[in-house]
Order: sequence, then C-alpha cells, then structure tokens
Amino acid sequence: MNMRKIRVGITGYGTIGRRVADAVARQPDMELVGIAKVRPDYKARLIAERGYPLYGADEESLAALRAAGLPARGVVADLVAGCDVVVDTLPPKQASRLLPIYQASEARVIFQGGEPAGIAEVSFNAQSNYEAAVGRRTVRVVSCNTTGLCRALGTIDRAFGVEKARVVLARKATDPDDPDTGPVDAVVLDPAPAQLPSHHGRSVATVLPHLKVISMAAKVPTTHAHFHSLLITVKDRNVTAGAVVRAFEEATRVVLLDSREGFRSTAQVFDYARELGRSRSDLYELAVWRDSVTVVDDEVYFFMAVHQEAIVIPENVDAIRAVTGTMDRDESIRLTNRTLGILK
Amino acid sequence: MNMRKIRVGITGYGTIGRRVADAVARQPDMELVGIAKVRPDYKARLIAERGYPLYGADEESLAALRAAGLPARGVVADLVAGCDVVVDTLPPKQASRLLPIYQASEARVIFQGGEPAGIAEVSFNAQSNYEAAVGRRTVRVVSCNTTGLCRALGTIDRAFGVEKARVVLARKATDPDDPDTGPVDAVVLDPAPAQLPSHHGRSVATVLPHLKVISMAAKVPTTHAHFHSLLITVKDRNVTAGAVVRAFEEATRVVLLDSREGFRSTAQVFDYARELGRSRSDLYELAVWRDSVTVVDDEVYFFMAVHQEAIVIPENVDAIRAVTGTMDRDESIRLTNRTLGILK
Amino acid sequence: MNMRKIRVGITGYGTIGRRVADAVARQPDMELVGIAKVRPDYKARLIAERGYPLYGADEESLAALRAAGLPARGVVADLVAGCDVVVDTLPPKQASRLLPIYQASEARVIFQGGEPAGIAEVSFNAQSNYEAAVGRRTVRVVSCNTTGLCRALGTIDRAFGVEKARVVLARKATDPDDPDTGPVDAVVLDPAPAQLPSHHGRSVATVLPHLKVISMAAKVPTTHAHFHSLLITVKDRNVTAGAVVRAFEEATRVVLLDSREGFRSTAQVFDYARELGRSRSDLYELAVWRDSVTVVDDEVYFFMAVHQEAIVIPENVDAIRAVTGTMDRDESIRLTNRTLGILK
Amino acid sequence: MNMRKIRVGITGYGTIGRRVADAVARQPDMELVGIAKVRPDYKARLIAERGYPLYGADEESLAALRAAGLPARGVVADLVAGCDVVVDTLPPKQASRLLPIYQASEARVIFQGGEPAGIAEVSFNAQSNYEAAVGRRTVRVVSCNTTGLCRALGTIDRAFGVEKARVVLARKATDPDDPDTGPVDAVVLDPAPAQLPSHHGRSVATVLPHLKVISMAAKVPTTHAHFHSLLITVKDRNVTAGAVVRAFEEATRVVLLDSREGFRSTAQVFDYARELGRSRSDLYELAVWRDSVTVVDDEVYFFMAVHQEAIVIPENVDAIRAVTGTMDRDESIRLTNRTLGILK
Repeated sequence: MNMRKIRVGITGYGTIGRRVADAVARQPDMELVGIAKVRPDYKARLIAERGYPLYGADEESLAALRAAGLPARGVVADLVAGCDVVVDTLPPKQASRLLPIYQASEARVIFQGGEPAGIAEVSFNAQSNYEAAVGRRTVRVVSCNTTGLCRALGTIDRAFGVEKARVVLARKATDPDDPDTGPVDAVVLDPAPAQLPSHHGRSVATVLPHLKVISMAAKVPTTHAHFHSLLITVKDRNVTAGAVVRAFEEATRVVLLDSREGFRSTAQVFDYARELGRSRSDLYELAVWRDSVTVVDDEVYFFMAVHQEAIVIPENVDAIRAVTGTMDRDESIRLTNRTLGILK
Repeated sequence: MNMRKIRVGITGYGTIGRRVADAVARQPDMELVGIAKVRPDYKARLIAERGYPLYGADEESLAALRAAGLPARGVVADLVAGCDVVVDTLPPKQASRLLPIYQASEARVIFQGGEPAGIAEVSFNAQSNYEAAVGRRTVRVVSCNTTGLCRALGTIDRAFGVEKARVVLARKATDPDDPDTGPVDAVVLDPAPAQLPSHHGRSVATVLPHLKVISMAAKVPTTHAHFHSLLITVKDRNVTAGAVVRAFEEATRVVLLDSREGFRSTAQVFDYARELGRSRSDLYELAVWRDSVTVVDDEVYFFMAVHQEAIVIPENVDAIRAVTGTMDRDESIRLTNRTLGILK
Repeated sequence: MNMRKIRVGITGYGTIGRRVADAVARQPDMELVGIAKVRPDYKARLIAERGYPLYGADEESLAALRAAGLPARGVVADLVAGCDVVVDTLPPKQASRLLPIYQASEARVIFQGGEPAGIAEVSFNAQSNYEAAVGRRTVRVVSCNTTGLCRALGTIDRAFGVEKARVVLARKATDPDDPDTGPVDAVVLDPAPAQLPSHHGRSVATVLPHLKVISMAAKVPTTHAHFHSLLITVKDRNVTAGAVVRAFEEATRVVLLDSREGFRSTAQVFDYARELGRSRSDLYELAVWRDSVTVVDDEVYFFMAVHQEAIVIPENVDAIRAVTGTMDRDESIRLTNRTLGILK
Repeated sequence: MNMRKIRVGITGYGTIGRRVADAVARQPDMELVGIAKVRPDYKARLIAERGYPLYGADEESLAALRAAGLPARGVVADLVAGCDVVVDTLPPKQASRLLPIYQASEARVIFQGGEPAGIAEVSFNAQSNYEAAVGRRTVRVVSCNTTGLCRALGTIDRAFGVEKARVVLARKATDPDDPDTGPVDAVVLDPAPAQLPSHHGRSVATVLPHLKVISMAAKVPTTHAHFHSLLITVKDRNVTAGAVVRAFEEATRVVLLDSREGFRSTAQVFDYARELGRSRSDLYELAVWRDSVTVVDDEVYFFMAVHQEAIVIPENVDAIRAVTGTMDRDESIRLTNRTLGILK
C-alpha cells in the first residue's frame, strides 16, 4: 500500500454521493478531501455536522450554502485541484457539465452508470474486470442493476457457461427519500414508449462482452429494491440447483436468503439490512433467494433483489484503488468488504 | 337457438359473481334465476335494487339478509333447483362446500380457476377448447392469468408454433375494492415460500396440454391488472414482429395498445376501459402492447396486461352455452362479444 | 326551456374535459359543438370514434392530430366562434393562455377551480350560489375539494349554523390514469414547503364568504378519492348526530355510506360507483360516512370522500345553464341529476 | 446508580422487541439476560449471531429453534426466573398469555401500548409521569401514537395550557418488513366500522388525564411513520408560533424539521434517520415540522411524524429504570438519550 493516502473528492451528494463519502471515510488508505453540493438542504447541513469539507457546485451554490450558514470552502474546481481521484455522482446524464473541470485537472475520475458508456475508458465491476481499470484516467462504475447482473451472471458463467440469459426486471419506482415520483397504483413500461429488449442486457455487455443477455423492464410502486427474475440457459447440461447455490455461496458480495426463513419479499430483504446494523440500512450484497434456485433441463431460474442505493458503493471504492493502481483486485475487495461489513 | 332461455344461477357475488350476473342478464338466450350471497352488505342491497332474485348461502345467511330488510327468497339449494346451469363463483378453494348441493341437482356447474382442475371434467378457455366442454356436466373456467396466457400463447402457437414459452408475472396485489391485502412497498414472491416454476405454466397445460410453458411470479402493490412479460421461442424461424402483431389483430378478445399513443402503464389500460364506457370499467380483452412486440432470432418478446376482474367473464358466458350445447363456438363467442361490447 | 340548444365547446380533454363532454352530450338542452385537444393520443382517437367534433389546441396541435389520421376541424378559435358557452378544462393555471381567444368571442366561459378566483366574475357551487352566476360572462366552478366542502359545510351551516369548521385533507396523490406522480410510500405536506392553514378554507370562502374554515392538507399514495376529516363547531347547541344525518339525507348530491354495510375505506367507495353502473365508475356525489357522524358537546365530527374526477361534473353542467339563464337552480339541478343518474 | 446491573429479559422479538434488546444492550446499568422468541426465522438466527441468549416461547418453540440449529437455552419461565425486569413485546393483546408466568415470578414487567391500560398499575411516558412508575410491579409504555401525542401535547400544555386538542391521524398501514397488510390504493377508516372519536384521545388521558383530546384516524398506504395533523385550542391567548417553536426546542425527544430544508414528506424524515446513522434508521424523536407551526386566534396548528417502530424505545429503557427505582427521571432520560444518540 502507498504510504500517502489517496485523496478523494466527491461531486454530487444524492443517493450515491453520500454513501461513497461515508465509505471513503472508512478506508484506511483514503482521505475524503471534500464534497461538492448544489443546495443548502438538510443533507448539506449534515455534511458540515459530520465534519466533511463542503464545496459548492458553482459560485451560485457556494453563495447559497454560505448564506445558509454552512462552511463551504470553494467551488468544484477548488475541490478537484486537491484530489487524486474524483467520484462523480451527479444525477444521470449530468456529468458532462463538469467534464471541462475534470479534464483541466490531474485527477482521475470515476463516473456512475447513469452516464453513457462512452464517457469513460472502461466500464467497471470489481469482480468482473478490475484489472481493466488499473491505471485508467476515467472509469465508469456500471449501474445498480448492471452491477447485480454482472455478479449473478458472471458467477453462473464461470461455473456453468451462460448460453443465453433472460432477465425481467421489476424496477423500484424511486428511492425512499423521493416523494415526487410515482406510480401509485400501476406497472409502468420502462422505458416508455416501449423498447425491447431493454438496455440492461447491453449494459452487462459493457463489462462482460461475451455474454448474451436479453432483458425486459417495468417499474413498480416500491422504493427498497429492484427485483429480478432470471431465466438462464447454460452450457453445462449437468447443472443442478445445488451446484448453482454453491457457486453463489463462494462468490463475493452475494448473499443467499431463504424464503422459508422469512424472506418472502423485498420488505424482509430491506429489514435484513436494518438488522445487520448497516449504515443507512444498506445492503451492499446482491440478494439471491436460495430456495428459488431451480433447474429445469438446461435452464436455471431464480429471483434476486438489488438494493439500488447501496450495491455500487463497494464497486466505487474498488474503482478508486484500481485507477490509482495501489492494490490488486483481491486485496482491494477484501479491504472494502471488511471496512463496509460485507461478510464475504 | 333454443326457444327456452337457459336458466342460470350464481353462487357467490364477489369480484367474479357480480360481473357474471350482469353479463348473463345481457344475454338474449339466458335468464338470471338468482344469486346466492353470504352477507347483507352493500353488494347484497344492490342485487335487490337491481331486481335480481337474491338467495342466502345458507339458513344463517338467509336470516341475516332478511334481518337487513333484503328480499331473500331461499337458500342455495332452492336456487340450484331452478337452474339449468349454476356458475360457482365462491372464493378460491371454497366450491367444495357446495358440491353436495350441486351433485344432488340436475344443474350443470361452471367452476372458476381458483378451484383445483380435478373439480371439473374439463378446464376451459373458449378460444382454445370450447368443443371439449360441450355437453359436460362440470366445467372449470381457468383463472384470469391462465385465460390471458391461453389467448396469447394459443395465438402465437397457431401462427408460429411455440417451442417453449417463458412468462414472468408481476401480479396485482389485490382487487380495487379490497383495502386489507398488501403489500404497501414491496415485491412479494408468489407463492412464498418460493416455488419455481410457478403453477401458471401448468395451468395453461390444463387447456393446451401440448404447450411447454415456464412461469415465475411475484406480487406488486397494484390493483388494476396483472402484468406479464413474455419470452417465447417459436418454431417458425421466419417469425417477425409484424407477423406477430397481425396474428394478434386477427385474434378475438385481444386488444393491441400502443405506448406511443399514451399507453405507458397499466394505469392507462385501466383508463382505456373507463373511456370505452364498459360496465365497471372492465376490460374483457387481453391487452398486448403493440409496440413492445419484438423478435430477436427465434424468440418473441412482448408485454401484456390482464384485467383480473373481467377477463374471465366472457369465458363464463361461453361456458354456459357450451355445457348446454345450445350454440357452437364461433356463434357463442360472437354473441358474447356483441352483448358485452367486445370489439372483436 | 329555450327551444334552441345551448351550444357548448370544451377546451382541454383531461380528467375534467372528457367527463364534461359526455355529461353535456347527455343534456337534452345542450349541443356538444366540439372539443379542442393538444395531443393525438388514445383519448383523441376516442373523441373521433365517439363522433364528437375534434379541434386542435393550436395550429401545431391541429397538424399533429391530422397527421395521426384524426378528423380535426380547426383550432380553438374556430371552436369558440360557434359556441354559446365554452368550458375551459385546461390543466391548473393554464387557462390564461386562451383568454385572448375567449375575450375576442361572444361566448360565455366556465373555468375550473385550478384557476385563480380572479379569473371569473363569480366562483360557483350549484347548491350554494347558483343565482350569483346567472347571466355572467365568466364563472369559475370551484375545485373538487372545495365543491365537497361547500356541499358538506353548506348543509351543516343551513341546519345548525357553523361557528368554525376545521378540516384535514388526506389528498389523493394523483388520478388513476397518471403513472408519473408519487409518492410511493410517504405522506407529503401539501403544499410543500408547509403553509398552514391550507388554501382550502379560503377557497370555500369564495363561494360561502361568511363561513370560517381552517384547513390542513397532506398528500397520500392513493388515486381514487380525497379523504376529509371534519371537526365543526356549530352554533346550535342542541345538534345531534341523528339530526346531522337527516340534514345530509335531505341534501342533493350527498350520499350516505355506512361502514357496517362494507364501506370501510375509499376502496369500497370507488367500488360502489362501479356497481352503480356509472360512466367511468364516477361518483358525482359527496360520500359521507353515515356511521362516522358523531357529536361531542357542540362539535360535529365525520369522514367524507370526494371523487376528485367526478364531483365537479354536475356543477359544470349547472354552470352552463346559469350563465345562459335558461333555467333556475332547482330545475337545472334536477335535470342534471336525472341525466347523470344522481339519485337525489 | 446500583452497582449490580439490572437484569432485563425480553419476550417477543418483533418490531419493538428487537429494538428494546439492542437499546438495553447499550445501557451501562443493564444486562440483557435473554430474549424469548416463537419462530426460528432469520431474526432468531440474528439473535444467536449477535450473541444474545435465546429462549423459546414455549416447549414447542424451543424444539423448533433447536431443530433449526439455534442455541436456545430454555423457555419463557426459565428466562423470567433470572430477570429483575421483563419487557413484554408480544403482539397487541397477546400479553395475557404470559401473565401467569410473569405473576409466578419476582420480576417487574413492562407492557406495551397494544395491551389494555388495565394490564398494568400505570401507563407511562417518561417526560409526562416517570415518577408515577417508580417502584411499580407493572407498567405499560403507551403506544407510538400516544407517546408522540404525550410529548407534543404535554409540551404545549406546560407552556400555554391546552383547552382542547384535536388530532387527525394518517396512520401508516404497516411496518416496512410486513408485506401482507394493505391497503394498496385506499384510505381506510381506523377502526372500521367507524368509531369517532378514535381511542387515541382516551389513550393520552391514561397518562395525562386532565387533557381534553379529540382524535380521528384513518390508515394510508405507507410504512415509515404515522402523520398527525394537530389543531389545539390553548388557554394562553398570547400564544405565538415562535413561542410554540421555542417550547419544542426546549423539549426532550422532539426534533424540529423544516420543509424549506428539504423535509417535504415523511420520506425525508425517514431519510434523516438514515443520515443520522441510527441503528435500523430509527428516529426516536417526535418530528415536528417547524415551519408548519401556525397560530390563528387561540388555536395552534402543526404537522408531526411518529416513527412507529422507534419512538417508544427510549420510553421502555426509562421504564426499566423507573420500576427498579435506580435513577430519577432526568438522570434516566439523559442516560438513555446519550446511549441511543438522541440529541436532546
């Protein structure tokens, strides 16, 4: 490990930004240099109360933060200037606004999956292609759903060979802190107007290009997790449900939950994260229903849940180490897991 | 057509029963002999206000109905005695309670899909196997989801040959008049504990035994429709999306809706039924999203919605004619469609 | 009654517009001259299928409608030119866009409650102040919540004298055909940021200026009705629950529902409208829970539900007659009630 | 402080039980002797993984827990025998099942608000009547809604004198880990059939008998908090909104949130608890919307949120100290607050 800590800045402080901030603050090899935020809301106040350095998104934000009595130190450019790595967590498709600032600096930049793949040199999932990100100037951590699919399909592919994967997503409508987005009592095509297959299969291919994945998605009135139904044709005709479960047991960042133990819905999955004592009741692991794993002929079926707010957090931490080249994959995953309380 | 009208009685007056009652009342060849109901609630009062003959489920119900000032005429056995056909619409798995009464009568009996297949001589979907029900003593109209799947898969199978169908159901949590059942903010395995594949594929086989159908189901917090994602491998390698759409256009009781015309969710599907002026805002047709129909290689993908309260109503009407042998399939479907306002 | 029918045009075809259209079409003394609409969606197609004359909101809309194959006849100004009365049903605060067109015409104009009170000469509720609207050039039918409150508080005030009314509204989040608006799992201050008392009390005063009404409102994840809790201090110290119920029984457009008959929630209220066979399952009446009516000391308490989509429809019909001076209040209310199936 | 720690056992491990367990484990003057649980679900497994002693509810439960490989030590009677205080957290109205066991022991017993007031010598809210519980054999911590109302109304009463309080509750439908209870899209009378005023006002009187409180309640489709609308007539005619806010600022276990800072709904209140890093994202404080506080004439209006899972937890901890007589009120509240991270 380098003696000097990696200096990390974060732009944006929504669902992902605040989680990355706390995760970075827990890493022994990283220093949280600051967070750039737009509005002086309660989240900005909590940044200050927590002692994290606060920056404005621009001069207007800086003024607004200071007008609210918050100790903002400067603007994004000031923050970026002091960073080895910047983690951009702006809302989807907003990162381009800060590209000139990033490009004018020496900092390496981690983008999120809401940005187009072309924004970065490589799309990233720690288990799948950590090495491809080593030393890069820009990396994109793929979205929550894609991260979950990379973990699941990567595991199945390594163990049994994926001939063709089909996935149907029942997407959460919004995050638990957003009261504006619906629906209230409907299932909504996603995207609408209809577009099949959905982009999720193609997103997996940005990380695991050899996999053939067909996806369909709709939005349902929930806030705690995406719910995936998987139907995977595998190459190994001797596949069994037991062997699939064992492959998941050995995979990192996958937790197996059993509906006979009470996990009958995403409600109990959320509750489980609360019971684990996790920060913000976050579940960093992909949750696979153990007793849903079924094999008929050469097809594997199971349900899984993706905590949309949390699953990419360990990936961002690993991506920071990858771009700085300070650790190899297994060392980084182990350290991230340990500091975040991920069991395996 | 027989000169004498078919005398039809209905046991149960919940979601299905009251719709069958109104549908029967609209048929020129049927007479609604009466309805047997348990509780003196507002629905019982409306039976009386509408002038339909009212019966008690048993002596206790009869007394309760009369105590509420409702003109109940007798009990189930009295009702059944005057019927050519009884449509049993009791809640799932309750029909067995009335079996002795049915068996002691001359009436033919139509059961609903919530009963086990073994309760009747044949499981029924008008388009798929009307003839198999002709002259039977007992027939079971398959459930809403199975009816929708029979319409869709039967259509695809006749046009292109189904090699293997996969369907993922996002089930409505409950009906719009039930405030007790959840979930509020969760996706629930259905059934729970997990059981894959779900029973829906096997249910289709009670009507279309040669079809290979794999199904997975979960429950979401909605009330207006089941939402199905279909992934069908077909035998005809020359299948195209256009040809699939045309097959649906020619099928009876299937309506094609386009998300570019505003049908972005099940909310607008419900609204469409309201705009059509249907009784109870019912959509008897299977709703297939036209612009979701997609073909990749030899697989057909699309979304569809099943109005759980309404889709089996025309099937019940046809089943009544089938068991009495008074019309052939096409004649019955045409008459049912015309009287219920179904366009094709 | 005038021999010549009142020529009525409608601008906007959302929640209110399409209901007013059908209601106008049912009036023996009115002629639906046409409907102006923006987008060529399924609702536009249904206008055409129903045979209602269709107009574009502007030249761009006209072109879009025609491009979709719909027989649009002209733009708003063309429609307005042929009308005695125009009912503006544009989304809240949009009516001002068409004011120049309205003002350049001879037509009288009915606005909806989403517009500011100042847009019209008088704010209107048929039971409360029909006469004030007679012969006016512009009238504003107050919003759904205000209409419900005028019916309830007007009834209580006439019978017992309202000293001070307090109402807490649990507002539906959105209409059943809108899948975009939330919340999913939250209660939302309405408005937010907080503003107490809410505007509803002041809105009642635009119709019944002598009433003192304090209101508080929040939004909940439902689509079928607003739910009001009322706490009313009355002047008549001899008030009883029975007397309050009788006052409601005698009021027009108020229906009393009993939770012991099954009306335990707004779900069953919605269901009741479906069972009544109403167009679009609409409940034009204010629904008061009969067995919730309670008196403690000099305060009256009860729950009531307001079907946000339907309750103002009879008011719009009456407003059309009021501005044209073609009928007096009781005659108009009776005719509207009869044509829409309102019982009393 | 006693040198010997208070030995505390807990019966039941649902919403309240597991939170009391963790809270007790954090108290320097208490020892968690064990938890009695019925089923071997994931919560039972987590008890064992956390190292808390596990007991079966009865012999059958004991066998089931052991069959699941869990190290259960005995049954409830064994647990109770080793306790100074037992906290009964069984589901509402179930505590009576264990009364013989409690009565056969020396242990003092804390019941929850779901039990009838008569089950215990005193109904308890720490701020309101700690002293009344000192040395008692049985105490009942009042329910979540009543606890919130005691905090709010007690504060207002001490500062301004409550003449009459009116509260309308929009109750959460269920807890976030329960996917079975609805409604999905409805507001439900609570209780149903209707009963006005609701019991909440009378429940406050079990703690603050001199207060006149009228309450009305309905259930809405949310999981994260009860939402209260308060309308309070006060005796001090010079009351101002500013003075009310100051009274809340000085009250313990009340947090003031401002909608202009982003707290527009209960969604952000839940989010705030997550951001505070609380165990299970719990909000022990009553949340009052600061900028909703409004005074008109002699009435005070405001909105508040009650986290139904958490608000009674500090009260249970204080009740344990009260019955054992080991600390006075202020000392106990301070220690409980400090150990649970409550700010004031």
